[in-house]
Amino acid sequence: MSEFRHDPTIGRWVIIAPERNRRPRSPLPASEQAQGAELFDPACPFCPGNEAMLPAIIAETASGEPPGWRTRVVANKFPAVSQDIGRCQHRAFCEAAPGRGHHEVVIESPRHNDDLTTMSRNEVRDVLGTCRSRYDALMADRAVQSVIVFRNRGSIAGASLQHPHSQIIALERVPPLVQSRQTAMLNYYQEKDCCVLCDMIAHERADGSRLVDENDDFVSFVPFAATAPFEMWLVPKRHQADFGDLSNDELNPFVDVLCNALIRLGAGLHDPSYNYAIDTAPKGGWGALHLHWCLRIVPQLTTPAGFELGSGLPINSSLPEQDAAVLRRAPLASEKEINV
Amino acid sequence: MSEFRHDPTIGRWVIIAPERNRRPRSPLPASEQAQGAELFDPACPFCPGNEAMLPAIIAETASGEPPGWRTRVVANKFPAVSQDIGRCQHRAFCEAAPGRGHHEVVIESPRHNDDLTTMSRNEVRDVLGTCRSRYDALMADRAVQSVIVFRNRGSIAGASLQHPHSQIIALERVPPLVQSRQTAMLNYYQEKDCCVLCDMIAHERADGSRLVDENDDFVSFVPFAATAPFEMWLVPKRHQADFGDLSNDELNPFVDVLCNALIRLGAGLHDPSYNYAIDTAPKGGWGALHLHWCLRIVPQLTTPAGFELGSGLPINSSLPEQDAAVLRRAPLASEKEINV
Repeated sequence: MSEFRHDPTIGRWVIIAPERNRRPRSPLPASEQAQGAELFDPACPFCPGNEAMLPAIIAETASGEPPGWRTRVVANKFPAVSQDIGRCQHRAFCEAAPGRGHHEVVIESPRHNDDLTTMSRNEVRDVLGTCRSRYDALMADRAVQSVIVFRNRGSIAGASLQHPHSQIIALERVPPLVQSRQTAMLNYYQEKDCCVLCDMIAHERADGSRLVDENDDFVSFVPFAATAPFEMWLVPKRHQADFGDLSNDELNPFVDVLCNALIRLGAGLHDPSYNYAIDTAPKGGWGALHLHWCLRIVPQLTTPAGFELGSGLPINSSLPEQDAAVLRRAPLASEKEINV
Repeated sequence: MSEFRHDPTIGRWVIIAPERNRRPRSPLPASEQAQGAELFDPACPFCPGNEAMLPAIIAETASGEPPGWRTRVVANKFPAVSQDIGRCQHRAFCEAAPGRGHHEVVIESPRHNDDLTTMSRNEVRDVLGTCRSRYDALMADRAVQSVIVFRNRGSIAGASLQHPHSQIIALERVPPLVQSRQTAMLNYYQEKDCCVLCDMIAHERADGSRLVDENDDFVSFVPFAATAPFEMWLVPKRHQADFGDLSNDELNPFVDVLCNALIRLGAGLHDPSYNYAIDTAPKGGWGALHLHWCLRIVPQLTTPAGFELGSGLPINSSLPEQDAAVLRRAPLASEKEINV
């Protein structure tokens, strides 16, 4: 049972989800993961043959080879939000609401020790295609207002299981960051008559100092106001408000820019833990001229501390232009291939 | 040289402070700190005799015993903001402003291995008194709009040096959390004709389920909408908008409620790393009927991950009422004293 609780001193909602404390954990440090683990872990609920540990399978992409699937979608057993929720019992002063929504897990590979950087590009295409189709399916739910697609890699980044997976949370409300983004992008559009991310792409391509990669359809760069060292944004060049707008033709270029970003991070920074999330339009934003979706990667290299707690103002102890230069220099082929 | 940079896609300012990467570090895990370290560390800039490593001393509380001082205030050598700042050179699209302000360190004790939980209550009184007088002095600077007093304890909580210290950052703008707090508290006041924290104190004392400690002048509790496990708020019972309003008579009760909170955290949770920050009024808020200052402690037990990154919505995997019960049960005397 989870619930939304409101803090009237800051005007902030919080999800209280004590069930999530019961999650099983495989807490290897991020840098040991790819190398250290076996192909199969008998205790891992996401490994083939361990389906008894899983809730019902929501979706699957088929494979001609054993175990017969490449990606799988299941409900999160320890959800932050769910459909199975009662009423909140609190006194009048304490404002609360049921933690209603959907929380799904995308199992990205049958192989326990796999990662987006070790899979083939076709396999990563399946992962992103699965995320997009679940995004569409959850957005089609009448009550859902906003869908967050995200990935936690490494225990420092909050991944409780090592088996490669993404997560999708669908909410029946628009969360604060999606709201701020909507407001800021609308303000910019009304002032300049142009989408801020379309403008930003043009500026970053012309300037070049924060650019990391580029292909016909996508660009990746360290943003000018990065909140943390080596933050990267992956943005479609064609104006599209919604992640669901991503066409099949754009899926391969998206896979390429994402895999390159993760390989550069791994090579340049010794396989750091990271989180990524897709910033996209809430319900009703489809086709909006002022919104533009984006995948935001933040490696876990520093800790927000007391100042951030008290001010809400991030301190980034790294210069975005220098970070971009480090990432551009990081080799795209693995060191082994280069050394041979 | 630090600067504020603006992210037009979210409407958020960030402090870019690459100098902070050059900080020296003494990275012991939090739980080893109190026990493991020596009274004096020849490499520590905060230890007596190492004044050559320090910038000029801004303030000091005297002591009759060697080394002659109990607390000391110095400028942060690797500041997030400073007075010594040039102009920002960026193209029109990229909005930036100089990172102007003050960043001070309060050295809390001459003893390298000390902590607020091992000092005498009189010594802690000196620490909080020093913070209050530096708060007043910085607020008196005409350009300063907001002052954040905070403490990072343990390397996981972002403390780069082990020697016990607090920090104070004075900004020439009002940061986002101080702004949200002002808005939310004003809304509440206009609706209910009462200060929200005065109302909350009455509610928490009557309810009791989230209460941790109480004396004549202060109350501590786990807030109803805690953003993280074992978050605690320490609030003065007398309505006062500004931390600078804290009277000398209230200093001892404040010391008691803070020391008790930190001892309970240490005993109940095996000496976790933590951050605390004082939420108080910005410039012009002194005497406001809708504002009420508060010290907020957040132990570093969980990691905000991809969902928080994408949504801005905190997930707390712990039930505030259960956390408060654990903290109330935690012994206030050290285990040694109890076992003997």
